[in-house]
Amino acid sequence: MQPKLRAVLTSIGLALISGGLAADEGMWTFDNIPLKKMMEKYGFAPDAAWLKHAQLSAVNFGGGSASFISSNGLVITNHHVGRGSIQRLSTPQNDYFRNGFIAKTMEDELKVPGLTVRTVVQMENVTSAVNAAVKPGMSPKDAQEARQRAFAEAARSLAEKTGLEPRQVTLYRGGEYWVYLNKVHTDLRLVAAPEGQLGFFGGDLDNFTYPRHDLDFCIFRVYENDKPYQPTNFLKMPSVPLKAGDLTFVVGNPGSTSRLLTYAQMCYNRDYTAPSALASLNSRRDAILAEAAAAPTAEEKRRIMNSIFGVENSLKAQTGYYKGLLDVDAMERIKNAEFELRAKIQADPNLRAEAGGSHAKIEEAVKLNISAFKEQQATSGFTGDLMGRLITIVNQVMDPPQQPADMPMAQAQARERLAAQARERAIGEFTFDKDKEIAALASALERAQKELGSGHPLVKSALNGRSPKDAAKAAVDGTQLVQAAARKELLDAAVSAYKASQSRLPAQRGQWLDGGRAAIPASKDPLLAIAVNVQKMQANVRQSQAKSQEIINEHAPRIAKARFAVYGKEIYPDATGTLRLTYGAVETYNANGTKIQPFTTLYGLYDRHIGWGGNSAAAENGSWTLPERWLQMKDKLDLSTPINFVHTVDTIGGNSGSPVLNTKGEIVGLLFDGIIESLPNNYYYDEKYNRSVSVDIRAVLESLNKMYDAAHIVEQMGK
Amino acid sequence: MQPKLRAVLTSIGLALISGGLAADEGMWTFDNIPLKKMMEKYGFAPDAAWLKHAQLSAVNFGGGSASFISSNGLVITNHHVGRGSIQRLSTPQNDYFRNGFIAKTMEDELKVPGLTVRTVVQMENVTSAVNAAVKPGMSPKDAQEARQRAFAEAARSLAEKTGLEPRQVTLYRGGEYWVYLNKVHTDLRLVAAPEGQLGFFGGDLDNFTYPRHDLDFCIFRVYENDKPYQPTNFLKMPSVPLKAGDLTFVVGNPGSTSRLLTYAQMCYNRDYTAPSALASLNSRRDAILAEAAAAPTAEEKRRIMNSIFGVENSLKAQTGYYKGLLDVDAMERIKNAEFELRAKIQADPNLRAEAGGSHAKIEEAVKLNISAFKEQQATSGFTGDLMGRLITIVNQVMDPPQQPADMPMAQAQARERLAAQARERAIGEFTFDKDKEIAALASALERAQKELGSGHPLVKSALNGRSPKDAAKAAVDGTQLVQAAARKELLDAAVSAYKASQSRLPAQRGQWLDGGRAAIPASKDPLLAIAVNVQKMQANVRQSQAKSQEIINEHAPRIAKARFAVYGKEIYPDATGTLRLTYGAVETYNANGTKIQPFTTLYGLYDRHIGWGGNSAAAENGSWTLPERWLQMKDKLDLSTPINFVHTVDTIGGNSGSPVLNTKGEIVGLLFDGIIESLPNNYYYDEKYNRSVSVDIRAVLESLNKMYDAAHIVEQMGK
Repeated sequence: MQPKLRAVLTSIGLALISGGLAADEGMWTFDNIPLKKMMEKYGFAPDAAWLKHAQLSAVNFGGGSASFISSNGLVITNHHVGRGSIQRLSTPQNDYFRNGFIAKTMEDELKVPGLTVRTVVQMENVTSAVNAAVKPGMSPKDAQEARQRAFAEAARSLAEKTGLEPRQVTLYRGGEYWVYLNKVHTDLRLVAAPEGQLGFFGGDLDNFTYPRHDLDFCIFRVYENDKPYQPTNFLKMPSVPLKAGDLTFVVGNPGSTSRLLTYAQMCYNRDYTAPSALASLNSRRDAILAEAAAAPTAEEKRRIMNSIFGVENSLKAQTGYYKGLLDVDAMERIKNAEFELRAKIQADPNLRAEAGGSHAKIEEAVKLNISAFKEQQATSGFTGDLMGRLITIVNQVMDPPQQPADMPMAQAQARERLAAQARERAIGEFTFDKDKEIAALASALERAQKELGSGHPLVKSALNGRSPKDAAKAAVDGTQLVQAAARKELLDAAVSAYKASQSRLPAQRGQWLDGGRAAIPASKDPLLAIAVNVQKMQANVRQSQAKSQEIINEHAPRIAKARFAVYGKEIYPDATGTLRLTYGAVETYNANGTKIQPFTTLYGLYDRHIGWGGNSAAAENGSWTLPERWLQMKDKLDLSTPINFVHTVDTIGGNSGSPVLNTKGEIVGLLFDGIIESLPNNYYYDEKYNRSVSVDIRAVLESLNKMYDAAHIVEQMGK
Repeated sequence: MQPKLRAVLTSIGLALISGGLAADEGMWTFDNIPLKKMMEKYGFAPDAAWLKHAQLSAVNFGGGSASFISSNGLVITNHHVGRGSIQRLSTPQNDYFRNGFIAKTMEDELKVPGLTVRTVVQMENVTSAVNAAVKPGMSPKDAQEARQRAFAEAARSLAEKTGLEPRQVTLYRGGEYWVYLNKVHTDLRLVAAPEGQLGFFGGDLDNFTYPRHDLDFCIFRVYENDKPYQPTNFLKMPSVPLKAGDLTFVVGNPGSTSRLLTYAQMCYNRDYTAPSALASLNSRRDAILAEAAAAPTAEEKRRIMNSIFGVENSLKAQTGYYKGLLDVDAMERIKNAEFELRAKIQADPNLRAEAGGSHAKIEEAVKLNISAFKEQQATSGFTGDLMGRLITIVNQVMDPPQQPADMPMAQAQARERLAAQARERAIGEFTFDKDKEIAALASALERAQKELGSGHPLVKSALNGRSPKDAAKAAVDGTQLVQAAARKELLDAAVSAYKASQSRLPAQRGQWLDGGRAAIPASKDPLLAIAVNVQKMQANVRQSQAKSQEIINEHAPRIAKARFAVYGKEIYPDATGTLRLTYGAVETYNANGTKIQPFTTLYGLYDRHIGWGGNSAAAENGSWTLPERWLQMKDKLDLSTPINFVHTVDTIGGNSGSPVLNTKGEIVGLLFDGIIESLPNNYYYDEKYNRSVSVDIRAVLESLNKMYDAAHIVEQMGK
């Protein structure tokens, strides 16, 4: 069926030039696909069989996305999703990440240790059962625990009934509770991967960039009982060529979005957490630069600088999210939408009873977070080598982690292993640099004074009328805890209590450090005294945060329920790393002073390679170099083959590797990125800039056929 | 000589990754090339012979730039610079703009009517002579006139002496006066031009865009006495391939920059003229969109929408300039630099005497402009069909243009022709729409009331206690001037005076409308009364602007002199459409979330073409379509040939067509654009984003040889 692309072109303007469509918001769950909206806009909506086929063909690939593409268990995903597996199989002698890999026969396929993938076979809504567990008069905390127990029980019982692996899925920030039941596969073998230079063409630099020329795919095969698995459903190769304007669908596991946060929560991110995250990334970046500058050799410098790309990349993403929050118009729209919802809640007695105070409650929770944030910042400087160790000791003794009684044993043990490691470090030997310790403490005291004021108890007692520098010198001069033995003594009671606790897990854990508590406030050590005060504030911060979370856990679901009551289910939940469907057209957008081409081709791959100086230039970390094979065998390729395209689908990290489907349910591409302008979509959808980037399946087939001598694999894919 | 590209790499950071250099500011005059700075940075500086060769090879091509590239007079420039000429030669039967043109023999070359090009042969500094004309005690106005006379006399006398065409060149906003002497050529013939689709690949949409794939060149030949002209100097084709990091030079005629404006003047642009220019472009854009929406046929709609590209393009440029002014950090740097200069002026008694008050004076001039701007805005709405005609009449009678006695006759006559046309229109018949006139007047009165307040004489007398709507209705109902005859009568005295004035030009012009003046204030017509008040304010605006300009003409040169005294000639003048040299390296930059390739290739041309759907897609106004020839003969081309590149040279509009030279003085490219991020360079230089885009000469040679069967032309270019 040919989508009626221009049917809804009601507004004039640039949309008229671009033939543009309003893009298509929503990461929809399979129980709630906006069929009517799709049909109105595109003249097409998938039927139940189409949707079931898409669902059962989709594969959750260790958090990323993938799909079955043959009757004998071939699974395709992005090269960057399979990268960990490819690297695990590689050795210095056989570097498959660098050189690529093609299994000539099934016997050559390489089993990936530890890789597990899942297909969602069944989805059960258990919201009523979960909510029924909450009895009138329960406190928010008790209610939350009751819900958790009921939810876990629902999952357990469904698992028992079906023999499938259950996953508890909370949607709409608590508006709905589901159990998704997975078929699990643990025998995966690598079948085909291009060279890293192709699968990661443009490297980290090109992340979030379009136009792009990235052959970001690799292929595995699922085995069962040492035989190729025969999936009930798999995606066929396209029978019609994809072109600009065509409707596409993406099925995969978007990781996390924050669109259903309240306005107050978004403001908190904008004013506190986002700038703080950026500042911390910037200082990591600066540290790497400083280290590189001090490196003795050019080789060493290059090695250090390589590690900057990951940081730059996070900076790129976080800056993009942050820009979304800084967009005054967008935030105004969000505020107004919330005002509207709040007014509707107030206007309806039932809704008012359920959620009339919930927005205000969340504002309170945010206020708690803000004051905690300030104290956290004020105490974040106390990181001197010795001070850090003292705070660890105080913390372990005074405020051991509160482990709920029903925490699974393995998780409790892991937590305690970490705590034990921290203790070992805190009481171990280290090279003490007195001047450095004094400088660090002086700077921390200065910051605390600046943020909290001189009258604050922590500041007042630490300075005692002296300058931060003098106070720091006195405390470090006066401490008896430089020696490991002294710190060990301080912890002794606690350590023995810890050892005793090993035998009585889990019943009494949380109390096993009681024995050590008395020792610490009794000490007269001046540095320890500061550490005690700092730890106290940090413990308060954690408490405020927990309290805030408790409020949010209670009221976010109330708001979600009210939103359903007001708007029906014409809304979609925030991304939660679970199976979703999104749709949209292949479509240009405005950027870089022009309109951007909807497709790129293999021609462009060579344009970028040669434009960067080919392989002879060592420039730009080799991001756009090509393997010799790609230079020598170039003329075998049809260079007009599309390699990447952009479409208006609504995706986010976690969607990587998702199959892109046409209206016939055939696989036309693999989603692998968003454009840099789309990053605010963590917080809201902007149809002007919401574009995702996918690998065109035609480039996968062309390269397998012509470059990698892998017609036998293409044949299994039915092409 | 191999430039030592990395010699100055002192700072680490991303510069270290990109191998980046600080880019190279300045549009330098040939008498003041920063040789020392170049040598320090690149280990190369041109010698006098190199510079003379570049100067004499450069051609001013009707405001754009070009150069001689053969011993027999071939001149190369951008396709978009030669476009007017190519279109003038085209007929519907022979559309050279569409189909391109290659002259098989010299006989086939096509003479362009009216095309004149110039080469600067000699440059004379006449600053002393000009300044000597100012005598102590002269008023600023008299001083300015004295300078103008001396300047014109210097030009005249140099022209007489050399037989060359003089051009008066004011540099450093009056800091220096030069006469440039040109050899003029008027017989130019078209030799070669690619198809418009190649010469303008990407169309207006791609303006200011990079990566780019635009074969923006065409070739003419200069004739003298019907024979190919043999220039004294011409540029040879490159003997070494250009590559990333290479030093380049651009010789051409940058049109206009505003970098030596004072901080107050820039703030004025930021707060008044720039937003107003953008608003006006936006409303032109909206008007086109509205017209397109109302168009009866799709074809008509498309035709109207085509005209939007020019407006969009101006919007692109103006938005870029404006962004520069909105950059708080950049403006802070400009302010601080000015503070520093002002402090140095105050610290030196001589400088203080010369320019101690000049910045403050210019601030005064800006204040005059601001108040004039406000009044101009307040009266800009009085544009009703009848109101506009009445204002024209009043204006012609009350405030005829003040023409200086020494204005050349031709210029004075042209001015009067325009005035006569305006008068004819004002007293001619037109279709009067009363409701429309009332609505326009009401809206204008409303705006005036809003901007000036109800107490302002214009507003007060027009409204007389009524609402704008009522007042407008009363005035239009009451006017006697709807009839053309009535308006003609009003102007009669003036028209007869005009006729009388024809015989006594130029001595008494400026006074010839005296006869008409009495008639107007005597009239009791209510609409005319408003027109009289509006015209009075508009005349005041013009007077304030003239007064402001007078102050600036006096004090900008004083500041320039002081700047020379403080900083020496290590500065360069603002662009004035005259011959300049700028230099810089072929170099990447950060944009679009990644680093941008320094070169593009013919591969990329096909990537964009096919990525946009080839010729079958009518999308995007055909901006990226290709002629059939380019599809059929593609395999003849070496697609790895570079087509465009970016370099750090400092250029602006007017530089289009400039030859790009390597250190050997050979032509490696043709400059044709800046990147969108570089647009603030109208006001200041930002090394992070200052990049220009050039056509690589290798693509010119490759296409002439392989695509256009024009080896005979390439041969004349010595390749």
